[in-house]
Amino acid sequence: MKLTVISTDVSMSEHTVMLNVSDCLAMGVSPMDRVHITGISSATASVVISETHVVKGTVMMGSLTMSKCGADDGSLVDVTFAPMPESARSIRRKIDGETLDSEAISSIVNDIMTGDLSEKEILAFVSAFNVNNSDLAEVAHLTRAMAATGETVHLGVRPVFDFHSLGGVPGNKITPIVVSIVAAEGLTIPKLSSRAVSSACGTSDFVDTFCNVEMDTESLIDAIRRCKGVFACGNEDYAPVGNRIIQAERPMGIDPRPTMMASIMSKKVAIGTTHLLMDFPMGKDAKVPDLKAAESLANSMIGLGSLLGIHVECAITRADQAIGRAIGPILEARECIGILEAGKGDRDVVDKACGMAGIILEMAGAEDGRSKAMEVLESGKAHERFLDIVEAQGGRRDLKSADLVPGEFSKDVHAKRNGTVQYIDSSSIVAVAKAAGAPSDDGAGVYFHHKAGDEVSEGDTLFTIYAESQAKLDRAVESARSRRPMLVSESACGIGQGPMVIARIPTKEMLDLIRFRSRNRPHGWRTE
Amino acid sequence: MKLTVISTDVSMSEHTVMLNVSDCLAMGVSPMDRVHITGISSATASVVISETHVVKGTVMMGSLTMSKCGADDGSLVDVTFAPMPESARSIRRKIDGETLDSEAISSIVNDIMTGDLSEKEILAFVSAFNVNNSDLAEVAHLTRAMAATGETVHLGVRPVFDFHSLGGVPGNKITPIVVSIVAAEGLTIPKLSSRAVSSACGTSDFVDTFCNVEMDTESLIDAIRRCKGVFACGNEDYAPVGNRIIQAERPMGIDPRPTMMASIMSKKVAIGTTHLLMDFPMGKDAKVPDLKAAESLANSMIGLGSLLGIHVECAITRADQAIGRAIGPILEARECIGILEAGKGDRDVVDKACGMAGIILEMAGAEDGRSKAMEVLESGKAHERFLDIVEAQGGRRDLKSADLVPGEFSKDVHAKRNGTVQYIDSSSIVAVAKAAGAPSDDGAGVYFHHKAGDEVSEGDTLFTIYAESQAKLDRAVESARSRRPMLVSESACGIGQGPMVIARIPTKEMLDLIRFRSRNRPHGWRTE
Repeated sequence: MKLTVISTDVSMSEHTVMLNVSDCLAMGVSPMDRVHITGISSATASVVISETHVVKGTVMMGSLTMSKCGADDGSLVDVTFAPMPESARSIRRKIDGETLDSEAISSIVNDIMTGDLSEKEILAFVSAFNVNNSDLAEVAHLTRAMAATGETVHLGVRPVFDFHSLGGVPGNKITPIVVSIVAAEGLTIPKLSSRAVSSACGTSDFVDTFCNVEMDTESLIDAIRRCKGVFACGNEDYAPVGNRIIQAERPMGIDPRPTMMASIMSKKVAIGTTHLLMDFPMGKDAKVPDLKAAESLANSMIGLGSLLGIHVECAITRADQAIGRAIGPILEARECIGILEAGKGDRDVVDKACGMAGIILEMAGAEDGRSKAMEVLESGKAHERFLDIVEAQGGRRDLKSADLVPGEFSKDVHAKRNGTVQYIDSSSIVAVAKAAGAPSDDGAGVYFHHKAGDEVSEGDTLFTIYAESQAKLDRAVESARSRRPMLVSESACGIGQGPMVIARIPTKEMLDLIRFRSRNRPHGWRTE
Repeated sequence: MKLTVISTDVSMSEHTVMLNVSDCLAMGVSPMDRVHITGISSATASVVISETHVVKGTVMMGSLTMSKCGADDGSLVDVTFAPMPESARSIRRKIDGETLDSEAISSIVNDIMTGDLSEKEILAFVSAFNVNNSDLAEVAHLTRAMAATGETVHLGVRPVFDFHSLGGVPGNKITPIVVSIVAAEGLTIPKLSSRAVSSACGTSDFVDTFCNVEMDTESLIDAIRRCKGVFACGNEDYAPVGNRIIQAERPMGIDPRPTMMASIMSKKVAIGTTHLLMDFPMGKDAKVPDLKAAESLANSMIGLGSLLGIHVECAITRADQAIGRAIGPILEARECIGILEAGKGDRDVVDKACGMAGIILEMAGAEDGRSKAMEVLESGKAHERFLDIVEAQGGRRDLKSADLVPGEFSKDVHAKRNGTVQYIDSSSIVAVAKAAGAPSDDGAGVYFHHKAGDEVSEGDTLFTIYAESQAKLDRAVESARSRRPMLVSESACGIGQGPMVIARIPTKEMLDLIRFRSRNRPHGWRTE
């Protein structure tokens, strides 16, 4: 049916059009049915029906839909009933408890990518596709379909190592250190990180202060050939559909395990990972609250990996306070590079970086990976390789941590009494750093002079807030005053102690057993 | 924080406000967090953050939110961070595969009722609360919580009988016949029906043409005391939260089993039903496509009933074509009342009504319920009781089917060849009746002169379309022309044959066995 477009700014959600009841009855269209609208281009929209608001012969739509179907106010478009897309039917079948095959899952993923499925439909899908209503084979289908929505890299080499943190702990600046150690040992590790979503600083945010993180596939492959490792940003090039799914999940604050697993693994499939080390920060507010939850998730990840041909191991790590002393892009970059330069630094950062790198080295066959990783860091070989990679990513080879200077507006926060630092509250410290302007202001953030367990005297500087303007500094100081991110009291303090890697799944003993059993079988994990 | 209200008509979904980034950072509010807004009254809204569109010190909101929090353009409101409601956390837990207790489910239901949970959140809940991710105990909690959102009736009598159709087959006008037969036999049957949602005519739509269907609890109890039965409308008084859930489901076209079961049963709990007969119309486009699906659903309904103290039986019925000859309010009323007057009429309507009424009589202890039901209908006792109920619902005792006259604009549709009617397509015939104006125009609809299996000659009238205006008649004729709801061809026709009640779950034999076993146990099913 040919209808005249009337533009409207009436509150309508994505791609909804309003039609007159009479036109709808003639077309056999009911409320919430879909119609195809063809102008210069074409769009699919849901239908709202009105008798009074819309004149017969017209179709009301918002600017979003007008531009999608290539129409202006007053243009004539062709409107026809659109049957519900097969992917929406598949989502309904999933809500009804059915198992979906790879074709059905691919069509859902493709329609999320093209925008043919609405955010509501995506939300319904991820809610239905939960742990009790999906199996690992479906998650593997989802992973492969998501990987197929973006670039796929063929490095022409095996094995390809990678590691991935579930996140949730601020200051986790280990990526460039781990990549540099592992690459210095000759292993391939094309690490793709991301920018902050709700945190004060993502890995790509701080790496971006000293080299390029946006690399096209060609330059990524070239850098890997030259340096074995990169620390690039993988947000939009690889499995980009993941971001659309996250967008639909965010309003609900959900991150259901099957889609979370598929989101993580789809980027690994895209980059050609063969060996993945997962980092599960464990803590009461983290995605993994206790060892039991960690084991359950680890088993799922290992199982999914095996369906995808990726060997997965998991490290459970301490997440009781921010890692290291710096929060915010330049501050974190400075701390990270400082450790590479000196071969030492904040105990927790060094311990976590070498612990993780060590496991990766062991995945490749090393005996005592952690000691080997410490040796590579302390010898300066890691720093050498770090500078190779920085250069390959367009940074300066003469990069020094001292070159990185945080915002010129700063404020020290002092202890009001003698005592022991009890804890640093992660969500509060993130709020303060964000109030100071992080992550968009590179120079904004927080630097801790003391961590949990430290004894302090009245007047000692506990932490310093940095900002790029006085107004933002004031805002952050106000936020620190209201949220009190650090508590000093007379009690002893139990947190902040012990090694950063608490447990491994599978354990070393379990892995030795597996290796013993498969010693005489070809396993294809050698570098080509 | 005190902020000035700026009104906006920018496309925003239900209760969303826009705040300046600076105010948000000061309040510790992130995108998609919730805020409480207090004006004269108060509202909860999600937050969209902007640096450029919203001036510091102001809050932008749509008219819906303004009226909810009692504010005008320019008024000062208090905006504070609102933690995520506990019910939203429970939905997240359900998405993560946890089992919810009755308290968590009640808080979800209550927040759906007050509007504190958005349509997106409801959709996520029903999608997650699917057959594989909920158990019958949770469905029972949901049912009771839904029942508690509206009126609850205490009739002071047991047993209380009820029946309920899953719907999906047009022309199903048996309710007043079944109620009249059952009530004439002295059983209590407070039947609450509903109006059409997407069909051409709901039971309440056609009953409304000859008596009141909207009854308050007092007059309902009074009518039950006098007549034992009613055929009222139960849409908004009983378990009204069900409608909000349906509203959230409709855009997705979903009706997941657990929430569907709870929606149905919540109204039965509210009205005090002790014995429920479910009608599962079976057909390829119906909710129950085959016997296997029917058995699975029947077992779930029987199990849920037993948790709620309601004895449930299920009848699987034929849904291969519209039931009877009339579609549309007045036409259906005329057919239904005609059968009660004459004690006979369209074979399928009589068969289904007596089959269903017969099962209910057997639930109360009768030996051959169907014969008993036929006898009550043929003797005129059902008609007598029907008129009692009509009178109790404010209708005329001298009501005659002949008084009911359909729309004055009509058009006969003729057979174009000799042959056999192959089928009547339900969705097409519904579309034609709706194009004619049903269900809002009482006189609109379709009357079949022939049904599937009938032999017809070229020129015979197949069906007549009725409307209340020439324009709507034209529209319906156009719709009939494009959709061709009835096919005549030379082949033999297999549908439209056999009894309307295809199967019962549990079977009579199974029930006899159960009765035999429990013969000596008190079962509390006697009339008080």
